[in-house]
Amino acid sequence: MSLFRLDASIFPAASAGAEIADTAEAEWAAARPGLPSVRRHLGTDPLPSDAWALATAAAGTPESDRTHAQRDAYALAVSLADELRGAEAVILAVPLYNFGVSQHFKAWVDLVIAAAGPTTPLLKGIPTLLVTTLGGGYGPGTPREGWDHSTPYLKRILADVWEAELVHVQRELTLAATTPALAALREPAAALHARALTDAREAGRTLVRP
Amino acid sequence: MSLFRLDASIFPAASAGAEIADTAEAEWAAARPGLPSVRRHLGTDPLPSDAWALATAAAGTPESDRTHAQRDAYALAVSLADELRGAEAVILAVPLYNFGVSQHFKAWVDLVIAAAGPTTPLLKGIPTLLVTTLGGGYGPGTPREGWDHSTPYLKRILADVWEAELVHVQRELTLAATTPALAALREPAAALHARALTDAREAGRTLVRP
Repeated sequence: MSLFRLDASIFPAASAGAEIADTAEAEWAAARPGLPSVRRHLGTDPLPSDAWALATAAAGTPESDRTHAQRDAYALAVSLADELRGAEAVILAVPLYNFGVSQHFKAWVDLVIAAAGPTTPLLKGIPTLLVTTLGGGYGPGTPREGWDHSTPYLKRILADVWEAELVHVQRELTLAATTPALAALREPAAALHARALTDAREAGRTLVRP
Repeated sequence: MSLFRLDASIFPAASAGAEIADTAEAEWAAARPGLPSVRRHLGTDPLPSDAWALATAAAGTPESDRTHAQRDAYALAVSLADELRGAEAVILAVPLYNFGVSQHFKAWVDLVIAAAGPTTPLLKGIPTLLVTTLGGGYGPGTPREGWDHSTPYLKRILADVWEAELVHVQRELTLAATTPALAALREPAAALHARALTDAREAGRTLVRP
């Protein structure tokens, strides 16, 4: 068994989500020494944008009638679903981009579903950490309340469709330290940063099952 | 001036959204004879999955320091934003896929924003028809109430960020006619189909400004 780790930042060197995921993964690795982690980085190695339509067409076509492109895309989809099936724990770090779901994460979800089917509980009983990072603040009472259209979708797929045992660590205001317009929020942002790393350590320990 | 028409179905021959969009577009074309419509089909010609990261990096890099790949991606982003800027009316047909936003539509939004900036009201005052199509039923009281994570996001970008004058036509239960599990819903589905086409004709007329 292994840990499956997925990242979706398009700027990995500066990724706030990767820091949280690394912190949690270190807890898992300390408790499960010698076990591998399987990594997929959608931000730096995005899946081809034509793969999903091809894989979906393949799924509805007898194997012998599939085109080469359909076969390749379907094989990719199967390999993505298998990465999830082979995991004893999962960590996914997915930033909020333009108020919505990472395009690369949605492409990955679509491909997994093309192979596994729309309602297969792929992660049933699997401890899964979702790390979300938001550049600004989206909480109750903020001007952007209700503008995070990503987190509810991520939870829907992971917890409701794939039935993962989901733990969620979120860090807001990740851009406060470097954005002049958010300078007044640097102190609360630093507190949220510290809190997220504490939460990450705790979440990492919950990924380890006896 | 022209009409900008965007489609996102990955199976265009069977697209319920295209039928609605065609119906609305015919009304616009009848009132604006001789004017062109500019089309972009994200389902059959998806944008490259690495373009957004490259275009975003380009936007933060002095022009003379950009790589060739960054320049190409940024030029693509600029051309997408310009397609919107050149429109006197807009029609977008976007299916719900796997309970979320079309991956190809989000890739397009991200690229437009890479060129235009995150808060530019690109469609301010522009009559815009959003056509959404949902395979099942997602209304109040249905088992899938709250599972349409696409429509609220599409409205957010079009109406709140880009400030379009938005009209929305939605057709639910598009899969009822061909899905055995939904056979009991064929009659209401047929009524919703007819209603959507009526709405489309009316919406098409609202796209025409004196």
